Amino acid sequence: MIDSTLAEIRPPDSAAMEAARALHTRLTKPAGSLGELEALSVRLAGLAGTCPPPQPAHPAVAIFAGDHGVHAAGVTPWPQEVTAQMVANFVTGGAVVNAFAREVGASVTVVDVGIAGPLDPAGALLQRKVRAGTGDIAREPAMSRDEARAAVEVGISVAHTLVERGALVLVGGDMGIGNTTPAAALVAAFTGATPADATGRGTGVDDETLARKVAAVRAALELRRPDPADPLGVLAAVGGLEHAALCGFMLGAAARRVPVVVDGVIACSGALAAAAFAPDAVGAMVAGHRSVEPGASLALAHLGLTPLVDLGLRLGEGTGALLAVPMVAAAARVLREVATFDSAGVAKK
Amino acid sequence: MIDSTLAEIRPPDSAAMEAARALHTRLTKPAGSLGELEALSVRLAGLAGTCPPPQPAHPAVAIFAGDHGVHAAGVTPWPQEVTAQMVANFVTGGAVVNAFAREVGASVTVVDVGIAGPLDPAGALLQRKVRAGTGDIAREPAMSRDEARAAVEVGISVAHTLVERGALVLVGGDMGIGNTTPAAALVAAFTGATPADATGRGTGVDDETLARKVAAVRAALELRRPDPADPLGVLAAVGGLEHAALCGFMLGAAARRVPVVVDGVIACSGALAAAAFAPDAVGAMVAGHRSVEPGASLALAHLGLTPLVDLGLRLGEGTGALLAVPMVAAAARVLREVATFDSAGVAKK
Repeated sequence: MIDSTLAEIRPPDSAAMEAARALHTRLTKPAGSLGELEALSVRLAGLAGTCPPPQPAHPAVAIFAGDHGVHAAGVTPWPQEVTAQMVANFVTGGAVVNAFAREVGASVTVVDVGIAGPLDPAGALLQRKVRAGTGDIAREPAMSRDEARAAVEVGISVAHTLVERGALVLVGGDMGIGNTTPAAALVAAFTGATPADATGRGTGVDDETLARKVAAVRAALELRRPDPADPLGVLAAVGGLEHAALCGFMLGAAARRVPVVVDGVIACSGALAAAAFAPDAVGAMVAGHRSVEPGASLALAHLGLTPLVDLGLRLGEGTGALLAVPMVAAAARVLREVATFDSAGVAKK
Repeated sequence: MIDSTLAEIRPPDSAAMEAARALHTRLTKPAGSLGELEALSVRLAGLAGTCPPPQPAHPAVAIFAGDHGVHAAGVTPWPQEVTAQMVANFVTGGAVVNAFAREVGASVTVVDVGIAGPLDPAGALLQRKVRAGTGDIAREPAMSRDEARAAVEVGISVAHTLVERGALVLVGGDMGIGNTTPAAALVAAFTGATPADATGRGTGVDDETLARKVAAVRAALELRRPDPADPLGVLAAVGGLEHAALCGFMLGAAARRVPVVVDGVIACSGALAAAAFAPDAVGAMVAGHRSVEPGASLALAHLGLTPLVDLGLRLGEGTGALLAVPMVAAAARVLREVATFDSAGVAKK
């Protein structure tokens, strides 16, 4: 399923991008006056292979949840049970991601891809558990190669399902106490950054906890020496189940030529893995926001993506990406709806 | 009418702000993880005088249009007729502001506060012309003091009307070929910046046109030496009719305790005038975006406002501010909708 998905991913359509650039010169606004949104609209045309691109309507956020063996290394002050508790909060609509999804009209799908404990049977939860949390990456592999593959395939499958239900723009979110530590390890593995540069304070840890995080990332990389040309191996060695699922989710979006808005450092680390599988998958990615996590900025720079929102967020869940969804929709509307100088009878300079 | 409006403007409610800060510590998210949106939500509570604040629903954008005598000084390559042509484009829904308004569900009101020529009779246009374009500020006052007052009162009146129709968040937009030149003069007058620092390339003018703009701003300020403590005098001397109306629009929003999202340099220059009338009016202002115009950044710094969007936009019309509307709404939703740790059964760190 990964192979067939990768086979469907194509480069952006240069004719559609050229048509979008040409259309921009005829629309009733000064050339270039929409800044980054013009570049985004051109990318949307290239992804869809047509100008104007389809309207990115019916946004859908999928939140992939998992637990992390590295929690035992003291990388976070939050109890591991909070992962499952927050998943219950997502299902009942009480979290920030739910509030933001309501604001932008997005559906919310919660996916258990690797929570450690049992969950109360909850209606709106997709049960796709690959294993009950990862191994402690500071001492052992996060998971087997087959488990990493299975988690990537969960993400691909969820992307396909959401697109089949009508979503024309996807958002990948995450929940997993401790998950900024494997995200930092993934960022370091794929970009070559040092553990100290790639690792941040996550939900806001103190200096001692940060030092333990950096040490865990360093130990994981030294133990496993993952090869960035082998993304499945990197995910299995130092990743997380939700990171792998987000990688698959972005590959699935790229295969369907639907834009996927990338959230913070967890999603960014999954995006790096997706780009290692298929460089052209980056054509489907829209950087939703610049998280304060340093690994997120390293990843965005590596991917060549410019974030739309920069408000000092560091929550995850998909929240930052959801805030960017109206901008993605607005960029498409410019090409689809704005009158030309000729049609509106407006003089040019 | 200005005096009665100013008398209604009050400082933010510190008890409501304190309640919002306290509520943030109990919501199911790490403290501070929403960055600037948390500060914004606290400001919304302070403005409304209650926590949680009302949801900023039913956004309404008013586009104030006017012409400028300084057009004769060669400050823009666009023909003056484009002001009226773009107003017709707004009325028929073909401009970028219309596309963005549809995206965020905002109503659009177009107000002729000072277009030079006659307009085709168009349905959805508010006829509030104070005079048919300003004088050339490089040689004469923009308008009389009474005309400036009348234009400010147009803005106040439109804000009241939109709030009475149900708008719980306002957006001020502008149209006026040449209007970045008086905006730069207003920014220089209110902030003390030099004409060279306050003046930008507007819709994208070349070096020679920029030099003419700076010369016009310098001439206007040297001729009139406006006193920043007399905002009506500043608007009359070196401003524009839409700038004055936007000033009034923000004063009206502040009097009604409804947030008003500030757009680019034209709106920012009106915001400076509003703050000179009533420093507490800043409590109602939300900086929608950081325009590439240097005067906009000077004004935001002077007002102490942090912009929500920073995408290199320089279109005006209210477009950048409209992109920020979902963020304003999302900030309020956090205080209104997100579950607490206690209510959701989520453990704290």
